[in-house]
Amino acid sequence: MHPALLMVVVAVAGGAWAGIPKVTPTVGEVWPRPQSVVSQETYVIVRPETFSFTVVGHTCEILTEALQRYMNIMFPSTTSKRTQHPWTKDGNFSAYLDVLNVNLLAACEEQPYQGMDEQYEIKIDSPDAPGEGSLIAMSVWGILRGLETFSQLLVPNSGAYNVKSTQIRDFPRFSFRGLMLDTSRHYLPLTKIQQTLDLMAMNKFNVFHWHIVDDPSFPYVSSAYPNLSEQGAFSSSHIYTEGNISNIVQYGKMRGIRVLPEFDTPGHTQSWGSQPGLLTTCYKDSTPDGTFGPIDPSNNANYDFLKNLFTEVTSRFPDHYIHLGGDEVSFDCWKSNPNITEFMAQQNITGDYAKLEEIYITKLIDIVSNLPTKNGYLVWQEVFDNGVEIAEDTLVHIWKNGNAPLIFKEELKKVTEAGYNTILSSCWYLNYISYGVDWYKYYECDPQDFDGTDAQKQLVVGGEACMWGEYVDRTNLIPRTWPRASVVAEKLWSSKDHTNDTSSASPRLEEHRCRLLDRGYDAEPIWPSFCASDVSDPA
Amino acid sequence: MHPALLMVVVAVAGGAWAGIPKVTPTVGEVWPRPQSVVSQETYVIVRPETFSFTVVGHTCEILTEALQRYMNIMFPSTTSKRTQHPWTKDGNFSAYLDVLNVNLLAACEEQPYQGMDEQYEIKIDSPDAPGEGSLIAMSVWGILRGLETFSQLLVPNSGAYNVKSTQIRDFPRFSFRGLMLDTSRHYLPLTKIQQTLDLMAMNKFNVFHWHIVDDPSFPYVSSAYPNLSEQGAFSSSHIYTEGNISNIVQYGKMRGIRVLPEFDTPGHTQSWGSQPGLLTTCYKDSTPDGTFGPIDPSNNANYDFLKNLFTEVTSRFPDHYIHLGGDEVSFDCWKSNPNITEFMAQQNITGDYAKLEEIYITKLIDIVSNLPTKNGYLVWQEVFDNGVEIAEDTLVHIWKNGNAPLIFKEELKKVTEAGYNTILSSCWYLNYISYGVDWYKYYECDPQDFDGTDAQKQLVVGGEACMWGEYVDRTNLIPRTWPRASVVAEKLWSSKDHTNDTSSASPRLEEHRCRLLDRGYDAEPIWPSFCASDVSDPA
Repeated sequence: MHPALLMVVVAVAGGAWAGIPKVTPTVGEVWPRPQSVVSQETYVIVRPETFSFTVVGHTCEILTEALQRYMNIMFPSTTSKRTQHPWTKDGNFSAYLDVLNVNLLAACEEQPYQGMDEQYEIKIDSPDAPGEGSLIAMSVWGILRGLETFSQLLVPNSGAYNVKSTQIRDFPRFSFRGLMLDTSRHYLPLTKIQQTLDLMAMNKFNVFHWHIVDDPSFPYVSSAYPNLSEQGAFSSSHIYTEGNISNIVQYGKMRGIRVLPEFDTPGHTQSWGSQPGLLTTCYKDSTPDGTFGPIDPSNNANYDFLKNLFTEVTSRFPDHYIHLGGDEVSFDCWKSNPNITEFMAQQNITGDYAKLEEIYITKLIDIVSNLPTKNGYLVWQEVFDNGVEIAEDTLVHIWKNGNAPLIFKEELKKVTEAGYNTILSSCWYLNYISYGVDWYKYYECDPQDFDGTDAQKQLVVGGEACMWGEYVDRTNLIPRTWPRASVVAEKLWSSKDHTNDTSSASPRLEEHRCRLLDRGYDAEPIWPSFCASDVSDPA
Repeated sequence: MHPALLMVVVAVAGGAWAGIPKVTPTVGEVWPRPQSVVSQETYVIVRPETFSFTVVGHTCEILTEALQRYMNIMFPSTTSKRTQHPWTKDGNFSAYLDVLNVNLLAACEEQPYQGMDEQYEIKIDSPDAPGEGSLIAMSVWGILRGLETFSQLLVPNSGAYNVKSTQIRDFPRFSFRGLMLDTSRHYLPLTKIQQTLDLMAMNKFNVFHWHIVDDPSFPYVSSAYPNLSEQGAFSSSHIYTEGNISNIVQYGKMRGIRVLPEFDTPGHTQSWGSQPGLLTTCYKDSTPDGTFGPIDPSNNANYDFLKNLFTEVTSRFPDHYIHLGGDEVSFDCWKSNPNITEFMAQQNITGDYAKLEEIYITKLIDIVSNLPTKNGYLVWQEVFDNGVEIAEDTLVHIWKNGNAPLIFKEELKKVTEAGYNTILSSCWYLNYISYGVDWYKYYECDPQDFDGTDAQKQLVVGGEACMWGEYVDRTNLIPRTWPRASVVAEKLWSSKDHTNDTSSASPRLEEHRCRLLDRGYDAEPIWPSFCASDVSDPA
């Protein structure tokens, strides 16, 4: 009666029997895999009671808060109970590591940004500094990535921790490593967004793409236009206030994660309807039929509204980039509306609705580019496909997939041929669940695997895992997203040579999933398995 | 960029705008739908401070504990804060309901059992007893079902609750309404099993089928054979002790839920290998190859082992029925083993491995039927398909499905033609997840929809939703199971006439999903929507 004959007859070595997980996890391996790891058979022992970080270079609040955070991650409060049991040492014991020297070589930057330096170096009991430990980076963002790596090297040993003598040099393959959540189709509590940011940091993601509003609801509370959420949110509690947003932006910043909001227009705006004249009135038989379509591009007042709204939005989200959407615009309502028809005749574009959309997007881009914050922007691929003139530093977000895998490879080729930077999501729509082991396909997708020159491939600055919200809310967000997003994280951080084999990734992913569970996050299983922290619900 | 154009242009009534969920939930409707509900426009108000149950008939611990439990469910501790706001009353207000008379007409039974009486009647402010409320049943099991129904009638009204003047007569369509969990492929903490039993009671399920052991692990702790879990569990913590099992049996009993364990043999027993001689030694080129197959039916000592083990198991699980498995036996290892070949020659069944399986199952059934507890049993459909002689009161468990829906309808026909009772799971394998709205297919499956006489259809005693554990553990069990299992619950409880239309079920299911969420259980969304308790994680 069981659904799939996953279990094969399993060899039994020497009469010892035990539960049979599908894969035996690694111990103390880092996820995503660093660019270069050299380790020895020897090890140091880290004792929670005596261990500390020592800041030997520049410092700032981001750094000191991170040190405290990682002390808590590495040494959960249950540790003290375990110290009753003495740890084991053998001939490979090298030294006690009581200090990790944290050496930031330049002053902290204030905000994470596109292209920030994230490289770092870790030396534990290295030949040139036996018995010592150091983490060195040029930027505070590199220090954050290195702290995560260091925390993953610790292997519990009866109340203390073993760390192999190790030298790591690490840096990301791609500069844009994103995860998207959708808070319009379902609301997500702040705690769930914070947990997502925690998990992103543990997987070295660096962009949180917040698809904050869409057709079903408008939870963003605007000071300039309070009606938008008062009438567009699911309820007066299903909202994100200015303070909530500031909290998330700050929470991300402390973890080296940029927070990019998306206000998708002119389609996907059904919940914006409280703004008078914003949405196109749809007609049937020459009469308004009571429904509304995309934003009305023929109404000049709408551009004032957009300017005011985006001025506010970009003041709350400090990143240089904002996501402007621009996807999936249906022309049916525009076609039905006599004012639109007249406007198009005036513009000499009668019948060319793609051109009408282009007029809208061009004006919107002009508005955003000329805000006091002079923002750059991301757009979904349709904006490029429709030939809209976009700024040089625009990121074109490729999302279309379908059954033919060549679709997105063709798009990667076209977008980079045109000289634009791009990020890929087509193969990483995590909301598309299916039965069975589904992560291989995420691991086997490579954003630079398309027909193009080296220069074109350099224009692929990264990718993004997307978790659309139709079937996701606080009840299932974390297990459905993790560790499936971890798979994407490794593809985006680690070298191509280290990420082309699911069978070598499997035992490390198995360890990483248990690591996330041990840390208190409900990362779901990827096949029959067990973790130490399976046996009871978190307190 | 959003994954499916689920959102259509939505009509806006009178300029009022609001977030747009897919379905507007009902208010105060009962899930699963009772057989008969008559209600009036009038209502009573229930005030938590003054309301109580009054026992006017028989009573017992099951009943008194249930009353306390439902007080907590109906009036969560947050209620007291809300009573600062006065409730509203209008012309339809009929009375305050300060007492629900709970009238059990016969003495309590001690254990739930196959065919127990679950009917009940509820009258709230009925024409023959205005202003009063009563719950009447012949059995304590009916009282339990009625309390759940009563709790669902309450509609919050500023710290108090409205209940429509209502008369309900209710009873289940099927006597066996099961849910299966699998604790071998992943371990599940006791708390998660208890939460499952809570949710089962809230959906009027009455059988918890505990697929406790299988190939990957053996968490059941046997006193007679402690090696089984010592060497077969994932770890010494991934176990269910005698006390744990007693806890679950008791927890189920208090909710009118039978707990049926499954010890599946002769296949699915890789984790049983610590018992010497139990599993068949597989050979390659005339030499044991280090792997093992199904239980070795040629070894007489194995039947003593099975007798001892099942004696213990049936003493811990008091239900008359036990599930004996019997599915998916691979013959490859048996074919390779020279002792088996010799045994089969002696039995004059050379080459007939189905017959060998039949010999095994026949002996096992003989053992179980002659235990001190004289148990009845369930078997997976293969046991019937292979022509094994089974007792008259056996339940044949139909599970095979595949792409052709006719497979299970044919099986229903055959099994009932042969005169056996049967339960259906084929269309309710909840572990098979897919993207999108997947519950319609569960709702559209009817266990009596096959080509057979009325007498044959009466032999279908129910069905069971199965959640196999390959990809499920404590992190995702609850959201992945609920409210999808609720859909099966209604098919099994409510009348055929009331359960043939997904569109009329939708608003009630939407309310029910929010109800489960409000009660603190992470039932996942079934489409874009919101609930009051979305906005923050449970404390």
